[in-house]
Amino acid sequence: MPSLIARIDPVDKTAGDRARAYLDTLTKPPGSLGTLEALAVQLSEISGELAPILTPPAVIVFAADHGVAAEGVSAFPQAVTAQMVANFAHGGAAINVFARQINARLEVVDVGVLGDVEAPGVVVDKVRRATGNIALEDAMQLDEVEAAVQVGVNAVARARDAGCRSVIVGEMGIANTTASSAMLAAFTGTPVEQVVGAGTGLDSRQQVHKAGVITRALAARAFDAEKPLSVLAALGGLEIAAMTGAYLAAAACRLPAIVDGFIATVAALTACRLCPAVRGYLVFGHRSQEPGHGVALEALDATPLLTLGMRLGEGSGAALAFPLLQAASAMMAEMATFTSAGIADKSS
Amino acid sequence: MPSLIARIDPVDKTAGDRARAYLDTLTKPPGSLGTLEALAVQLSEISGELAPILTPPAVIVFAADHGVAAEGVSAFPQAVTAQMVANFAHGGAAINVFARQINARLEVVDVGVLGDVEAPGVVVDKVRRATGNIALEDAMQLDEVEAAVQVGVNAVARARDAGCRSVIVGEMGIANTTASSAMLAAFTGTPVEQVVGAGTGLDSRQQVHKAGVITRALAARAFDAEKPLSVLAALGGLEIAAMTGAYLAAAACRLPAIVDGFIATVAALTACRLCPAVRGYLVFGHRSQEPGHGVALEALDATPLLTLGMRLGEGSGAALAFPLLQAASAMMAEMATFTSAGIADKSS
Repeated sequence: MPSLIARIDPVDKTAGDRARAYLDTLTKPPGSLGTLEALAVQLSEISGELAPILTPPAVIVFAADHGVAAEGVSAFPQAVTAQMVANFAHGGAAINVFARQINARLEVVDVGVLGDVEAPGVVVDKVRRATGNIALEDAMQLDEVEAAVQVGVNAVARARDAGCRSVIVGEMGIANTTASSAMLAAFTGTPVEQVVGAGTGLDSRQQVHKAGVITRALAARAFDAEKPLSVLAALGGLEIAAMTGAYLAAAACRLPAIVDGFIATVAALTACRLCPAVRGYLVFGHRSQEPGHGVALEALDATPLLTLGMRLGEGSGAALAFPLLQAASAMMAEMATFTSAGIADKSS
Repeated sequence: MPSLIARIDPVDKTAGDRARAYLDTLTKPPGSLGTLEALAVQLSEISGELAPILTPPAVIVFAADHGVAAEGVSAFPQAVTAQMVANFAHGGAAINVFARQINARLEVVDVGVLGDVEAPGVVVDKVRRATGNIALEDAMQLDEVEAAVQVGVNAVARARDAGCRSVIVGEMGIANTTASSAMLAAFTGTPVEQVVGAGTGLDSRQQVHKAGVITRALAARAFDAEKPLSVLAALGGLEIAAMTGAYLAAAACRLPAIVDGFIATVAALTACRLCPAVRGYLVFGHRSQEPGHGVALEALDATPLLTLGMRLGEGSGAALAFPLLQAASAMMAEMATFTSAGIADKSS
């Protein structure tokens, strides 16, 4: 991992300045395309180009199980993780639909599902079968964390080798909002009650129970909040570690990574704690309804492109945001300038 | 126009209920796709189908000039209207880029540009050459309003004949935020200061001047706020009337219409005042930075899909929102159900 981090350069602010200057020559009032202009600048900073090609995007869904599911912290039974992986493999989940809409290369990676998934096309890269129950024991060992991070790095390498020019990372793992909330509380010191939500559909009584489990885990586990890998080991998830690796790898390849909802943002925060330069490569796709997401976004000083009241995960919100990145880049590539179109400027 | 309005049926709430029930069988926690689920329900209400086909979309840009430009209410000279129409014709404007991204049929309609536009492919359907200066005289006569509305109706008919399955309407017209602000104040009684903004880039002193012009126009013109056509005649614009006609026609054809920013929303409000059943056919694409837009959206009880700090017009925000409608419909068409995928439900 140190060698990976050493390969991550800060984004190219000079290229961003060039993009900013060029934007004001295009046939529109200066600044009138708002966030899309800021996005175009960031995409230039990431790529060094005025109008980078972003297609095809990679959508990589990492799946793993969580021992803490035994504490009754999810509205769905643990078996759903493997069942949903099969659903991904057969093309029937929301992320399949949205990935097809953007002509993405979709890959599903089993980094730690409890059972054996019988489904075509799933990349089986199991580091272990589910994490430990964080209420009782560490989620995993440090070498397992590193192996799971590497699974994410390898997935991005495959996507890049296949020609992908942008990266969307999603997840599936029953009880993974519990792990994410625990990690976020550990990283930021935010009170547990403020980072716990309904997940896939808990009522308020069940959320109180979930918060209690997280509070117990935080008290019982040993970790150093300044050492992101120790937080992953104590409280995290195999898919969260893989996502962390994917964000590191995207930055090392100078590819934009579109961050999905709560769990993805906690993984992104983990990557940025490991290497702050990663932040410049991250575009935030959507604001989840999960309350902890706001805390995680604030910790990253991030404003998502979309706010659609979603709370599904899988990479769904990031995939829905992708057309905005395409539009930002196409704006740079295809719009006429005031001069080329012979249009009177504001000052004339 | 009465015969057109007679052809507008309310949306099909029963089809919406069917969509709502079907959504809860799909492989996702109930409600977890948030606004996208509400959008799918609305698209079913509009079309009567569970997963309507929305492509190709029509993007129709109506252009016209405004006599009130003589009062110095815009940051750009009046000649820019015709110059931008030529830019649309040559494919270099933002709306061209965004329309290409969604494979739209783009049509540019000159419903009242002052000069002659020398550009290929523009539909010349001039009702008159610019409106009157509303600070001094009515924008147009009632028969001109009706003719301009019909220009919009005809444009939607052409789009439908060409196979379009959804409608995006945009505009170009230097000084048209002034006309829109005046109309909105007339319709809602909102103080002028609250519906006036920077337009294409006025500073605060210039906005005070613009508000003064609108206040004078409102005091000097005779109109009946209960008669939308009289408001269009006294204060409106030829492109705003055409957009109003386009929304009426979309509803009559049971096609979803994606509403763009401030000017488009004032036209949509005009259409809904003429025929309240139109409201059900309108999807709101984005929230503009123009302050009057919030007032117009509130008058329509509308929440836009996107908030990207944009203030360009042309239909740009609506075009950027279109992929979300596609995703909503694809979700209905393509997602697996819990039963078909063999996935344990929440209760099991």
